[in-house]
Amino acid sequence: MNNYSGQHLVGVVGFRGYSGDELVRLLARHDGVEVVLLEHRSDSEGHLTPLGHKPPKTIAAETSAIRQEGIELVFCATPPEVSIALARDLLAAQIKVIDLSGAFRLRDAETYSRWYRVRHGAPELLGEAVYGLPEFYRGQIREARLVANPGCYPTAANLAIRPLIDAQVVDRNRGIICDAKSGVSGAGRKPSLKTSFGEVSENFGAYGFAEHRHVPEVLQNSGLGEREFTFTAHLLPIKRGILETIYLRTQRLEKPVDFLSIYEEAYSEEPFVRLYAPGKVPDLHSVQHTNFCDIGFVFDADSQRATIVAAEDNLVKGAAGQAIQNMNLMLGFPETKALL
Amino acid sequence: MNNYSGQHLVGVVGFRGYSGDELVRLLARHDGVEVVLLEHRSDSEGHLTPLGHKPPKTIAAETSAIRQEGIELVFCATPPEVSIALARDLLAAQIKVIDLSGAFRLRDAETYSRWYRVRHGAPELLGEAVYGLPEFYRGQIREARLVANPGCYPTAANLAIRPLIDAQVVDRNRGIICDAKSGVSGAGRKPSLKTSFGEVSENFGAYGFAEHRHVPEVLQNSGLGEREFTFTAHLLPIKRGILETIYLRTQRLEKPVDFLSIYEEAYSEEPFVRLYAPGKVPDLHSVQHTNFCDIGFVFDADSQRATIVAAEDNLVKGAAGQAIQNMNLMLGFPETKALL
Amino acid sequence: MNNYSGQHLVGVVGFRGYSGDELVRLLARHDGVEVVLLEHRSDSEGHLTPLGHKPPKTIAAETSAIRQEGIELVFCATPPEVSIALARDLLAAQIKVIDLSGAFRLRDAETYSRWYRVRHGAPELLGEAVYGLPEFYRGQIREARLVANPGCYPTAANLAIRPLIDAQVVDRNRGIICDAKSGVSGAGRKPSLKTSFGEVSENFGAYGFAEHRHVPEVLQNSGLGEREFTFTAHLLPIKRGILETIYLRTQRLEKPVDFLSIYEEAYSEEPFVRLYAPGKVPDLHSVQHTNFCDIGFVFDADSQRATIVAAEDNLVKGAAGQAIQNMNLMLGFPETKALL
Amino acid sequence: MNNYSGQHLVGVVGFRGYSGDELVRLLARHDGVEVVLLEHRSDSEGHLTPLGHKPPKTIAAETSAIRQEGIELVFCATPPEVSIALARDLLAAQIKVIDLSGAFRLRDAETYSRWYRVRHGAPELLGEAVYGLPEFYRGQIREARLVANPGCYPTAANLAIRPLIDAQVVDRNRGIICDAKSGVSGAGRKPSLKTSFGEVSENFGAYGFAEHRHVPEVLQNSGLGEREFTFTAHLLPIKRGILETIYLRTQRLEKPVDFLSIYEEAYSEEPFVRLYAPGKVPDLHSVQHTNFCDIGFVFDADSQRATIVAAEDNLVKGAAGQAIQNMNLMLGFPETKALL
Repeated sequence: MNNYSGQHLVGVVGFRGYSGDELVRLLARHDGVEVVLLEHRSDSEGHLTPLGHKPPKTIAAETSAIRQEGIELVFCATPPEVSIALARDLLAAQIKVIDLSGAFRLRDAETYSRWYRVRHGAPELLGEAVYGLPEFYRGQIREARLVANPGCYPTAANLAIRPLIDAQVVDRNRGIICDAKSGVSGAGRKPSLKTSFGEVSENFGAYGFAEHRHVPEVLQNSGLGEREFTFTAHLLPIKRGILETIYLRTQRLEKPVDFLSIYEEAYSEEPFVRLYAPGKVPDLHSVQHTNFCDIGFVFDADSQRATIVAAEDNLVKGAAGQAIQNMNLMLGFPETKALL
Repeated sequence: MNNYSGQHLVGVVGFRGYSGDELVRLLARHDGVEVVLLEHRSDSEGHLTPLGHKPPKTIAAETSAIRQEGIELVFCATPPEVSIALARDLLAAQIKVIDLSGAFRLRDAETYSRWYRVRHGAPELLGEAVYGLPEFYRGQIREARLVANPGCYPTAANLAIRPLIDAQVVDRNRGIICDAKSGVSGAGRKPSLKTSFGEVSENFGAYGFAEHRHVPEVLQNSGLGEREFTFTAHLLPIKRGILETIYLRTQRLEKPVDFLSIYEEAYSEEPFVRLYAPGKVPDLHSVQHTNFCDIGFVFDADSQRATIVAAEDNLVKGAAGQAIQNMNLMLGFPETKALL
Repeated sequence: MNNYSGQHLVGVVGFRGYSGDELVRLLARHDGVEVVLLEHRSDSEGHLTPLGHKPPKTIAAETSAIRQEGIELVFCATPPEVSIALARDLLAAQIKVIDLSGAFRLRDAETYSRWYRVRHGAPELLGEAVYGLPEFYRGQIREARLVANPGCYPTAANLAIRPLIDAQVVDRNRGIICDAKSGVSGAGRKPSLKTSFGEVSENFGAYGFAEHRHVPEVLQNSGLGEREFTFTAHLLPIKRGILETIYLRTQRLEKPVDFLSIYEEAYSEEPFVRLYAPGKVPDLHSVQHTNFCDIGFVFDADSQRATIVAAEDNLVKGAAGQAIQNMNLMLGFPETKALL
Repeated sequence: MNNYSGQHLVGVVGFRGYSGDELVRLLARHDGVEVVLLEHRSDSEGHLTPLGHKPPKTIAAETSAIRQEGIELVFCATPPEVSIALARDLLAAQIKVIDLSGAFRLRDAETYSRWYRVRHGAPELLGEAVYGLPEFYRGQIREARLVANPGCYPTAANLAIRPLIDAQVVDRNRGIICDAKSGVSGAGRKPSLKTSFGEVSENFGAYGFAEHRHVPEVLQNSGLGEREFTFTAHLLPIKRGILETIYLRTQRLEKPVDFLSIYEEAYSEEPFVRLYAPGKVPDLHSVQHTNFCDIGFVFDADSQRATIVAAEDNLVKGAAGQAIQNMNLMLGFPETKALL
């Protein structure tokens, strides 16, 4: 149902968190939708509001109210357990859902329990959920009622790795190493010692290894086995951005342009994946505040060693931007609308 | 009572906070004392400890245990209400106290209630407490059982303002303005949204005005009235350091060196106050990780306008360093020991 | 002259500096203009370009080429001496100019020489130049051929001060103090020790006093005399944003809402000035990446003391955004186009 | 020759750079030496000096003057070509040299030319120079006239890797990957766009790969071949600290404690290498402003995959601190003097 201006109504739960806040900001530029804020719990402070400035309409995050409002699609920027409860109700009321948590990213309930250390509350939805990485699942996303927006780390990792796996040029026996570094907003807005200024500023360290919840998302979408993929997550003293340095060995590639051509084949038509000349790599300034994932690499044909650098804004292509890209597909807008 | 090496035993309560942690670090360089950590509440995480590294002895922050241990002096890096309870007990057991909270800085219980919005729990101690600014109260500190370590903002403000007030060159009718900026550690280590990396980084703002608790400390020690002193506290996106830009008009000063000579008279023998040539002002790199308070100024004789810049490390001269300076006086060590 | 899509052609000289770069980025969102980059000197590195990404057309910054290209208006994001030479030639060729340097901001050539310490190279243009602060000179800007885009500090200072001066509520005898803090991009992109990461990070200091070139811009537009206005510029360890804390005493104001109503009268219809309830003040996160100047204040009616906090993004409202606001007026676009 | 207080006289060339400045600061705490500053070229600004503060004696960096002064040992914190010229002269005058550049770190002149892209100006000294990593070359350093202080990256890399190589538990066929991240001070104090605040702040990126000059230092001291060692250098938006995440596969290790025991055997007596329990890794706050290199790891016995995290302060253990550690050995002081 559309509003009087012919816009689709979409709701955002969790709009005070960093991803939700970014969603609201980006959606404000999208003239095809009107945003309604869905108040779930007032557990966090909002922004100071200037006089005379009218914030978006806010209603309770309850399915009946949402339905009555005429909202067609809801973004859940909430913890997995909240997302599971919301999604079940909303889908039952014929409201589409794009979930930004990890709740629906893994296809298998057992895998979910292992990595999230809790039983999944709505396993019947896992088969229906579509993994919202448009570069690989565009067709399914268009038809989906429930889209699991990918994790920030897996978005960059899968975009960087999967074309090489598909082209069968990776020496999988030697394994792929992903040394990942993220800005602090990836940890959410909830105060904690680990994300306090005094602990993060002028600091840097590793905080997640093989047990990180984003690992199975990479495995599921790349086809790699656990022993073939080594992952480390580090915390950068910046607010936003993810950069992953990925190490692997290839087989049968003769020169850097052969390596490049695999990426070009995969992405030359993609609006949000940008490539660089061999030997050139992006940094975080290249991608912050954009929906791009940038990929560059250094390749040494003699030793078949490749070092790939993939960069994205964890709040945009790694969260809110990609969610809007998915919404554009689900509601029939041009895929890049409000994102360029 | 000393330990087997002839060192004085001193205790630190609140050793996991930023000021307490700095105290422990600085005291480790002081070969005249041995530190005992006094565990009050495990409400905060400590540091990761390397293998084979032996941390200082830790006992409960209870007076009987402290006394039995032979501890002579206790630093309380705790909230005011905790400090009040601790100080009363410790003094009764003949243990000296240096308190880093605001509990004993104001001489008057009524003034305390007004600014701290709670009745003082041990008003009988206010008369005995000595304000621990050695540049002005050195003699009393030497004899004190209870020292109220000054607030971080008032330390710099009083050092910058008081010699001018005492020399009667300030046009008090026009008022003194103190535009103060502090690093985040001034707000303590307890996690909060306001001190989280995402809110502080790449940000700057004012957070305290006339109602700030440090205002009465400046008034009490400078002799200024409330209408004569305007204060604003801002939060800098750095971990440590306070810089105050102070504006006032003088009377009867003919040239910049006259202004300088007032400071030189006050501080030429002071080990921890450094002055600069007229027109030169310190920045925070000048003072971080030191116990110095640096003072520079720009003076325009025509208009009698002075702009003074005072800088200090809020965790050192503004907290732990000054506390050790006070301890050195109280225990008979050279005043600068472990601080240069 | 318009391009085939009916867009106006506009040029940017100095597009590799921070203001120029921001201009190009913001203009890319403006569908009424097409940007042409005008290469003046390759003294600075540009960005890494992704494969297949087509940057804007680039031509030499020479009047004949600019004219032949059909460019209607040129933004000069160049040092004053370069701007002066360019502006003279471009105006002679009937091309409009918005200059982001200080070259044309002061009405008087003698005043210019005093503050910029060099003779003005085109004093005949000073009478024609319009000061590009739309909130006060909107009508003249619409008709102007040459607009002097205001300095970053004076934009916030004038917006905060002038309504109060005009309403005659300021006790000018006591003076106005502006304690200003700016992010590093205000100093430009040219490498220097003072703006290197190692010197700025975890640091803060004052770097400009009464002699700062932005002082006469405030005086000229507010009507204040030199002795009535005290200014200090500080360098914040952040990339973008200016926050000014302004101290003054009023006369004859009875309560905070009286103070507010002066601002409301001046700005209630202004799209880019936002006000806050008495006692609430903006921080830099409120304004970064926007064209807003936000103004809040604390007012104590008893003492007639006001502390005003004005915040803006120095690269947007303080430079590129305001330049586009001026362009919108000069070319007949809605004033807010591409800026909300 | 000693001064009147019986202190050894030591000189520092390049005292205005970050490493030289740190050297002077750390040496001020060493009561066995007196520092003389050796002025080579005034190409960089120094610090603001407080009134009455006496800086160390400064003389020209000329061998005759240095000799006449009675200086026994000179630290060269200078570019390689300057170090080569200075070292030759100083050694001829019987003055010991600790060089902080890369000039004398590689044993072979041809290897030097390949990586530094210039002929070595004093190849005859390469045989005599001792690589100043005390954990491995302590005995030789004690006797040396010329010590090549290790590079910042190789210090951490060699300390982390070499015990494993020596214990023959690394599957060298699969290679070792070192993903290294450094604070900005590693690039020196000379202004450049790449190290300017605007480019570094809120940014992160890779800047060096197989061609980095520190690679051959790791190879030479670990015994690894070029194809066995993959290196990437990244720039962190902080001033100081290096953290290296190192990936390798072992053979024949049954459990994490077996991995740990190799390090314990190598380092249990070392004062400046600290180890952590399996699964615990240091961050940069653990080591900043100290001379420690901290090493932690995660080891999965099933797959024989190890992820090692080594952290140090690039200006201390990675430069000035290690230089003093070497000086202590060369002049007969306790090795840890002034460094704990």
